[in-house]
Amino acid sequence: MATVKLLSDNELSTEARAVFDDIRNTRKSDFVNNFWRALAHDPKTLRRTWESIKEVMAPGALDPKVKEMLYVAVSVAHGCSYCIHSHTAAARAKGMTEAEYHELLAIVGMAAETNRLVTALGVPVDDAFLVDAPAGRGQE
Amino acid sequence: MATVKLLSDNELSTEARAVFDDIRNTRKSDFVNNFWRALAHDPKTLRRTWESIKEVMAPGALDPKVKEMLYVAVSVAHGCSYCIHSHTAAARAKGMTEAEYHELLAIVGMAAETNRLVTALGVPVDDAFLVDAPAGRGQE
Amino acid sequence: MATVKLLSDNELSTEARAVFDDIRNTRKSDFVNNFWRALAHDPKTLRRTWESIKEVMAPGALDPKVKEMLYVAVSVAHGCSYCIHSHTAAARAKGMTEAEYHELLAIVGMAAETNRLVTALGVPVDDAFLVDAPAGRGQE
Amino acid sequence: MATVKLLSDNELSTEARAVFDDIRNTRKSDFVNNFWRALAHDPKTLRRTWESIKEVMAPGALDPKVKEMLYVAVSVAHGCSYCIHSHTAAARAKGMTEAEYHELLAIVGMAAETNRLVTALGVPVDDAFLVDAPAGRGQE
Amino acid sequence: MATVKLLSDNELSTEARAVFDDIRNTRKSDFVNNFWRALAHDPKTLRRTWESIKEVMAPGALDPKVKEMLYVAVSVAHGCSYCIHSHTAAARAKGMTEAEYHELLAIVGMAAETNRLVTALGVPVDDAFLVDAPAGRGQE
Amino acid sequence: MATVKLLSDNELSTEARAVFDDIRNTRKSDFVNNFWRALAHDPKTLRRTWESIKEVMAPGALDPKVKEMLYVAVSVAHGCSYCIHSHTAAARAKGMTEAEYHELLAIVGMAAETNRLVTALGVPVDDAFLVDAPAGRGQE
Repeated sequence: MATVKLLSDNELSTEARAVFDDIRNTRKSDFVNNFWRALAHDPKTLRRTWESIKEVMAPGALDPKVKEMLYVAVSVAHGCSYCIHSHTAAARAKGMTEAEYHELLAIVGMAAETNRLVTALGVPVDDAFLVDAPAGRGQE
Repeated sequence: MATVKLLSDNELSTEARAVFDDIRNTRKSDFVNNFWRALAHDPKTLRRTWESIKEVMAPGALDPKVKEMLYVAVSVAHGCSYCIHSHTAAARAKGMTEAEYHELLAIVGMAAETNRLVTALGVPVDDAFLVDAPAGRGQE
Repeated sequence: MATVKLLSDNELSTEARAVFDDIRNTRKSDFVNNFWRALAHDPKTLRRTWESIKEVMAPGALDPKVKEMLYVAVSVAHGCSYCIHSHTAAARAKGMTEAEYHELLAIVGMAAETNRLVTALGVPVDDAFLVDAPAGRGQE
Repeated sequence: MATVKLLSDNELSTEARAVFDDIRNTRKSDFVNNFWRALAHDPKTLRRTWESIKEVMAPGALDPKVKEMLYVAVSVAHGCSYCIHSHTAAARAKGMTEAEYHELLAIVGMAAETNRLVTALGVPVDDAFLVDAPAGRGQE
Repeated sequence: MATVKLLSDNELSTEARAVFDDIRNTRKSDFVNNFWRALAHDPKTLRRTWESIKEVMAPGALDPKVKEMLYVAVSVAHGCSYCIHSHTAAARAKGMTEAEYHELLAIVGMAAETNRLVTALGVPVDDAFLVDAPAGRGQE
Repeated sequence: MATVKLLSDNELSTEARAVFDDIRNTRKSDFVNNFWRALAHDPKTLRRTWESIKEVMAPGALDPKVKEMLYVAVSVAHGCSYCIHSHTAAARAKGMTEAEYHELLAIVGMAAETNRLVTALGVPVDDAFLVDAPAGRGQE
């Protein structure tokens, strides 16, 4: 499958190679996964996406393991099998235990169920959930 | 909007009232939000959903705050505005800081972007992401 | 909201009016709901959509009530609030009881939950679920 | 693929085995499909999910065949290939004819089309589709 | 996979064969792809779908290449791998350059990201984006 | 609604104000829409998102009008009402005619329909749609 050829190291443009070098340096690993090999056809999007991922997934207020688990949750809801596999592997590599994984799965499933029940019923948002400035359409 | 009338306390069946009592006792709050008031027309689904939520969101391996953040992430990907508002409020009530909220939002957005890039490109899963027993369709 | 003005009867083109007449005749009702008033800006899509709906929702192997319930189920999963409201009303008008509606809701929620669990786990399809000619990519 | 190993019968915990026994007894078949073999790593979610499915899909107001068809419709909209295959097989096993299957497919496709047209146009819900108590955000 | 057998030319009903003939004539190619071979079990839906596609994708105000690119964008957001592959191939066949393809991918990814950020934040629509007749629910 | 207060100009941090200045300069307009006023709570994500949007939507191989139409198509499939309204307005501002808009809508609807039919049927990808190096999972 794939709509483009995955590029091997010796097929990279100079710009793409520079991004691959940064991926390897940042991750301290020689392994560059297929996503980047597909994106490498377009060095501009390759660079922007990598720089963004690096910023978003960098150490911050949230535990890196939790960040990967959030990534998995979104990927499941979007049905991206590749992303589910790669970020589940990343979460495990960053310390997610099987007990934590089971809770993640249970929450994803439960959220899906109540999301659809709420949508089916058209439940109106409670005032209690609104921030103090409930800006209308004409706000600002 | 809403496809059913939201039930006030004095319109509840005996079975629904028992579930509302448990919601109030478990949450140590008199407030029962609109989702349960819509579900209350069907006491069986009301009970099953509440019991499941209670089990899934109970203290466990993951921080309750993280559980709510995962719930928000899934709700965003499913486009459930009510769920986003209620679980963002719950995450804040359980201690999510604004810095953590900003990281949550950034991850949700970033995951959405790479999910769709991967899907568009049809990227095949790397062997490195597979568990050691890559069961085929004929497994077991 | 709405990205176009909803057209009233006296703003319709001749082609659009002809479709409205057929909607009224087919449904034996003077009421034409907002969807058609938005689509009416483009008589070609208005006609094609109405002709398709008429063919698909016509009496057939399935009970008209069941057809509307399937329509609701899909609309919930796609998060179309308008469609949920209009087809829930249609299902009720065609005889859906509240007990049937409750079962519909429970199934939609349950399917959402197991859909996401299956996707998260990447469960491979059992051979037992394949039709007898499991055509590969090179089929035909 | 799959993010966990699918468990064979002799790898089950005591708790998981008890659920498998109930699946076999309830379905009057020795066959346990891959979904449960993936979920079996977490006996608590395995049990809760099975008990919920058993309750939701039990004989009730709706024909069991219709219940499976609703399950298929939701699974298609969520893009869960495994679920589509398993519930299409189940619907056929419970008597869905090919004529009924064709109507199901046509409705799923048509609903998807009008769902997206409505969403694109931002069509406001007609008053006629609202239940008699159109609760606002401040309801209750 | 597939829930039905893909039909080869010599397995077609008379009605399905007539549609295949029109596909071949319209496209000036002997190749009929798998989608139509799966749909061919139901000649009525086969015909309606083909006639609709033919009308929608016919030369019009938009460049045929752009039409295929829009089809790809929607197919990515819906996670339809088959559709992504077939319409990416079609867009290329109709002249989409690799530079255009890269821009398409970047837009699809970026839209996904901002779509989810907006949804997470519940951003209210600016008055400036409303058409001049902001019809309320009671419009018409 | 909204999970955060929308910030007015005099509530902006220095970093956020700098981004707003660039938005105004780039667009040659004083108007800054609500999306940026919600994002402004997190200047880092505000900046990254704005810089990415500016790069992706800049003049390139595709007509700016077509870029906005692709953005609308994705936003519809993701059900983001705000995004639909803002990018439909942008497409019109960049020259999208009503005839082009009607074709956009027709394609979005048609793609949704065939996406779901293909997914429901589990249609395998034709060899003809594969790029010449159909990399397997073990590629590279």
